[in-house]
Amino acid sequence: MPKSPLHFDPVAGRAVELNNLPWVPFPDFLSKGGITWKLLNVAPEVGSWAAIFNCPEGSSFNSHIHIGPGEYYLTKGRMELRGGVESGGETVTAPAYGYEACEAFHGKTYFPVDSEFYMTFLGPLHFVKGEGGETLKIVTWKVAQEAWEASL
Amino acid sequence: MPKSPLHFDPVAGRAVELNNLPWVPFPDFLSKGGITWKLLNVAPEVGSWAAIFNCPEGSSFNSHIHIGPGEYYLTKGRMELRGGVESGGETVTAPAYGYEACEAFHGKTYFPVDSEFYMTFLGPLHFVKGEGGETLKIVTWKVAQEAWEASL
Amino acid sequence: MPKSPLHFDPVAGRAVELNNLPWVPFPDFLSKGGITWKLLNVAPEVGSWAAIFNCPEGSSFNSHIHIGPGEYYLTKGRMELRGGVESGGETVTAPAYGYEACEAFHGKTYFPVDSEFYMTFLGPLHFVKGEGGETLKIVTWKVAQEAWEASL
Amino acid sequence: MPKSPLHFDPVAGRAVELNNLPWVPFPDFLSKGGITWKLLNVAPEVGSWAAIFNCPEGSSFNSHIHIGPGEYYLTKGRMELRGGVESGGETVTAPAYGYEACEAFHGKTYFPVDSEFYMTFLGPLHFVKGEGGETLKIVTWKVAQEAWEASL
Repeated sequence: MPKSPLHFDPVAGRAVELNNLPWVPFPDFLSKGGITWKLLNVAPEVGSWAAIFNCPEGSSFNSHIHIGPGEYYLTKGRMELRGGVESGGETVTAPAYGYEACEAFHGKTYFPVDSEFYMTFLGPLHFVKGEGGETLKIVTWKVAQEAWEASL
Repeated sequence: MPKSPLHFDPVAGRAVELNNLPWVPFPDFLSKGGITWKLLNVAPEVGSWAAIFNCPEGSSFNSHIHIGPGEYYLTKGRMELRGGVESGGETVTAPAYGYEACEAFHGKTYFPVDSEFYMTFLGPLHFVKGEGGETLKIVTWKVAQEAWEASL
Repeated sequence: MPKSPLHFDPVAGRAVELNNLPWVPFPDFLSKGGITWKLLNVAPEVGSWAAIFNCPEGSSFNSHIHIGPGEYYLTKGRMELRGGVESGGETVTAPAYGYEACEAFHGKTYFPVDSEFYMTFLGPLHFVKGEGGETLKIVTWKVAQEAWEASL
Repeated sequence: MPKSPLHFDPVAGRAVELNNLPWVPFPDFLSKGGITWKLLNVAPEVGSWAAIFNCPEGSSFNSHIHIGPGEYYLTKGRMELRGGVESGGETVTAPAYGYEACEAFHGKTYFPVDSEFYMTFLGPLHFVKGEGGETLKIVTWKVAQEAWEASL
């Protein structure tokens, strides 16, 4: 037991140029249609992570809940969330920004055309078997890092 | 699609006096030995929550992972984390403060004497069937609020 | 420029027993009436910090803004915020919990009787010369750590 | 004083398409060379905000400290941080990602060619008159929102 709280120094910044990083497949059991990604950063104290996703026409992410808030910047294409605007959800065309709130449930995130988006996540994505369904995978910053490193 | 980002006002503060709140049982399948608790606050944007726990001699919490960081203030008694200091873990005696980091796994948190602690959680507790085990329950701020409200 | 994002391991937890730490004076130009404190932790990635404050009868904190949210647990005594309940603010009697929101302005936080409270801060306290007034000091986790270490 | 903690519902998500938003001048006393920006979102509970900046060749931001962590995605051009790589700092070429840590001091952020970047900020930017210098402005989510709304 220390006699005083530990001393901490500020955390170091870091940067990556994206052309130095390969596109690797995003896990099959979490997405459909050939989505690839690049992990850009993890922040282990608060549990945030940042990544960019390339989503071919017709691809989609499986059902998931945002356990913490996430913010995306869609640089290319179009993204349909929660069924898209025709089914009461949302459809955004690039360039677009979106804030996905803590507890947001995304039954299916679909890309009707070739698309690309950058996203920051505060906390994990909780992939489930449909709304209220069984846990498939909790993608924390650590799980994301493991998946990324395993695919290199 | 709005023509501009939404306007937001600052969030309101709030306070509760603890003697106004009942002690209610903490769910049985997440703890043993008669632990009771009071939920004090939830913060839905970032997903944090605050609570106080009363832990009789011999009680314990089941295996869980801190999905985000948590900070406790032990006001009474003694708490053994990760087997306690005799098994390579930690034992703290009140008054004590502790920071449980993002991804910390707590196989068993045990109270050898009557104890009480206040804790703030940034993100959920992930209760599991032992280390690396199956998900039992993800206690987010929303699950905590539902459990609290159901017990009143 | 790295070829890949840096690898990070989970942050380590830590704990302190409060009787191992001295009470030291909280800076004079930020408070009145002999407030003392113990710094319990800092978290440099997100910029949070935790401390306990001992506030004699008649003591007070000078005007400040909460730049991020803060949560207190009043273990002893009584605290008047924003003039106290008689002036449209809030008065809480121990044991009490409170959530002070991001952007909350506290003209004067006053202790009519001997009091003690534990508090966690997400981000800095911005001490000012009255509402809308000039910056006196921005107490970040780093400034708090420097003040604490200088007083030992 | 409530008899129980307040009930909260999940926060709502939101999105904006950038072509719906005008480019407006970023305040003159915080930057040089004609930087324009679009505010994309604020999150008042935790104090985060998101924006995109257009930075003509030769433009720069004045000295500032990141009070909380910030993450940028440089979509076009080149950015020199802390004097650029020739002076011990960092130079990144688009597409690039960077994590600016809590307490990072940026004496001058310079754009040698036409550039554009999207950035999320957890907490304020503290503009100062040089390193260790006097406070010029604390740009919180609220100040950012006020500046944006005033410029429409």
